[in-house]
Amino acid sequence: MPVGLEHPQSLLIIEGIRLSASSADIYKEKRNDIALIEISDDGVISAAFTKNHFCAAPVQISKDNLNESKPRYCLINAGNANAGTGESGIQNARIVCETLANLTHCSKSEILPFSTGVIGEDLPVEKINKVLPILLKNLSGDHWLDVAKSIMTTDTIPKAISGQVKILNSTISITGIAKGSGMIKPNMATMLSFLATDANVTKDCLDEIKDRALKKSFNRIIVDGDTSTNDSFLLISTCKANNSIINNKDSKEFKVLENEITKVCCNLAQAIVRDGEGVTKFISIVVEEGKDEAECLSVAYKIAQSPLVKTAFTASDPNWGRIIAAIGNANVGRLDTTKVNIHINNVCVVDGGERSKTYTEEEGKKAMMEDEIILKVSLKRGACCEEVWTTDLSHEYIKINSEYRS
Amino acid sequence: MPVGLEHPQSLLIIEGIRLSASSADIYKEKRNDIALIEISDDGVISAAFTKNHFCAAPVQISKDNLNESKPRYCLINAGNANAGTGESGIQNARIVCETLANLTHCSKSEILPFSTGVIGEDLPVEKINKVLPILLKNLSGDHWLDVAKSIMTTDTIPKAISGQVKILNSTISITGIAKGSGMIKPNMATMLSFLATDANVTKDCLDEIKDRALKKSFNRIIVDGDTSTNDSFLLISTCKANNSIINNKDSKEFKVLENEITKVCCNLAQAIVRDGEGVTKFISIVVEEGKDEAECLSVAYKIAQSPLVKTAFTASDPNWGRIIAAIGNANVGRLDTTKVNIHINNVCVVDGGERSKTYTEEEGKKAMMEDEIILKVSLKRGACCEEVWTTDLSHEYIKINSEYRS
Repeated sequence: MPVGLEHPQSLLIIEGIRLSASSADIYKEKRNDIALIEISDDGVISAAFTKNHFCAAPVQISKDNLNESKPRYCLINAGNANAGTGESGIQNARIVCETLANLTHCSKSEILPFSTGVIGEDLPVEKINKVLPILLKNLSGDHWLDVAKSIMTTDTIPKAISGQVKILNSTISITGIAKGSGMIKPNMATMLSFLATDANVTKDCLDEIKDRALKKSFNRIIVDGDTSTNDSFLLISTCKANNSIINNKDSKEFKVLENEITKVCCNLAQAIVRDGEGVTKFISIVVEEGKDEAECLSVAYKIAQSPLVKTAFTASDPNWGRIIAAIGNANVGRLDTTKVNIHINNVCVVDGGERSKTYTEEEGKKAMMEDEIILKVSLKRGACCEEVWTTDLSHEYIKINSEYRS
Repeated sequence: MPVGLEHPQSLLIIEGIRLSASSADIYKEKRNDIALIEISDDGVISAAFTKNHFCAAPVQISKDNLNESKPRYCLINAGNANAGTGESGIQNARIVCETLANLTHCSKSEILPFSTGVIGEDLPVEKINKVLPILLKNLSGDHWLDVAKSIMTTDTIPKAISGQVKILNSTISITGIAKGSGMIKPNMATMLSFLATDANVTKDCLDEIKDRALKKSFNRIIVDGDTSTNDSFLLISTCKANNSIINNKDSKEFKVLENEITKVCCNLAQAIVRDGEGVTKFISIVVEEGKDEAECLSVAYKIAQSPLVKTAFTASDPNWGRIIAAIGNANVGRLDTTKVNIHINNVCVVDGGERSKTYTEEEGKKAMMEDEIILKVSLKRGACCEEVWTTDLSHEYIKINSEYRS
């Protein structure tokens, strides 16, 4: 059961974007499992991909195509990752792109393929080719939610949200969707995410906004510490709004757009954690008063990746010994452990490196019973603060991951 | 249920070592939970401790005492880690050492304290002091197994083994014990281990043997990736054997002793994994044909620490996609993924970065059903080979770690 996550509603149409979803019979159950996003030809696009050495065939092709052309279509399938498929995986993805290119009279490099699902199985090219005309026929600006649903794998709920902001009297809209709930770790998650805005913005500025937004959102979540072969994030601007073009990274308008896009990204990133495999708790880990970003993140990730801490959360057990053991393993030069403080929600658990004098097990237990928990660690050695979001580790996680594929 | 692990038997007495175990009512259930090891005064000792910043009070004191004196006694308790206990934890451990020093007419710096168990609780000083005379009275050379039993926490079986080797017509004996089954990761595990030999060897040579043996044994195991606050390893030589002293690291005798000590360490280290929390499979991960040790270990640890790989092992699911995803996340510069091979036992699963042409799911499933699995990854870019040992990740692990302490 997802934690604090509701079904998405009232998504905004983004002028210049049309979408559709259908079934190509790829997913193990019958449901929509393929989607198409059409981008108007005056848009600008910024993308980020997995850093996994074994990156999937569609990731390799999308990277190449982005270097060559400005994309007009994103073709996304769920149920088959087309990863670990070698040269034939590349060929299969290319065939599908070519078929779509022929149908739409565009160049095949203007098509970006995306896949998510099981690794190592051949992409069912025929099935996909067959459904392309249907996808094209059904394109419409108000199909965001259908697409969000069609790209789900172990997700239990679709992830989608819109935001709106005024920039110099123009109303700018943003709509984003994402999928993912396991194999989630920074750089990035097993996730696909597509965001579009109508803001009028240069490619250069959009690239910078993408980097900044990713850093504060999808690169701050962790479910199990595995990084997938298929992670992709696409930020599209159709430039259809009538704001005067944003071309200065120091401008107020740039900042307003950056903030709103980051907000949408954070919401989607947190939604992935809230729907994490087997999740029973949504945990924000805040590491403050560190010397720099690197050490704050090292502490946060050590905690977020510790199976012992994660199982203690599952049991609502305020076993803070496991938390200090995780902190002690982080890459922090000359940490003075006698200064470290830990709060679970508002309960001071550790003060000066040992159990707080005011702490009672009863209070700790009560704080751990909540399904939204803020775990705050103060290192008392600087001014830097970083936050990451994670889940607990439950029986359900084991169940999902030992039964998936079977 | 431990995998391929039998109750220890026929342990050798090491001349110059006497031991005893008793109950000080520290452990949650009534059983022996405290032990004493007495070392003859002409012995040499080499030690290694956790690298966790939050190292426990006994670790801090043992480190200090080793700098000051040659140890005569190791006092070990289970059920309480005396970690996260601040200044009072240090005081408590010191009081216990002082009481023992008074009883034995030695200096308090000749006593090394060791603790394992729950973090953050005060050490029950009175209970321990009370049992010290009993421990002293019961010292005997043949109590190795009793001590191995008394230091267990989540272990289901005591870990102990002996080895014997001829060095220049002298018979050298080695006996070692260890505890640990969770919070296990290189540098080191949540483990205590005490090894003694009667070999006549210099301190300098013993230190070198300790480093080499640790590297190939306790620093090559991983259960959950957490590193404890209390890990300690002590290698004692009583120098009672009549071999002419080993003082040359390039000598044949040095190598013979190194090999035998490493063998005992590997056996104990593997025993910890075989008894890992919730273990259903003992997995050896061999990474070969890498450029150097660092990249081989990075690949091995990424696999060993991947919850997705570990849950696939639990399910006997040959989900090799998760294995390549883990390899792809390792710190290997410019990995050519199209050269990577993977074998599960004798089944070639991945050949040239994709599913092997000869591979069948049935064969893979059969290999994964074994309870001892060798997962071999060939990187095809060098001559280095490294091996680590790990477990799967089962429901039982979650159960143990969400219920421990409660």
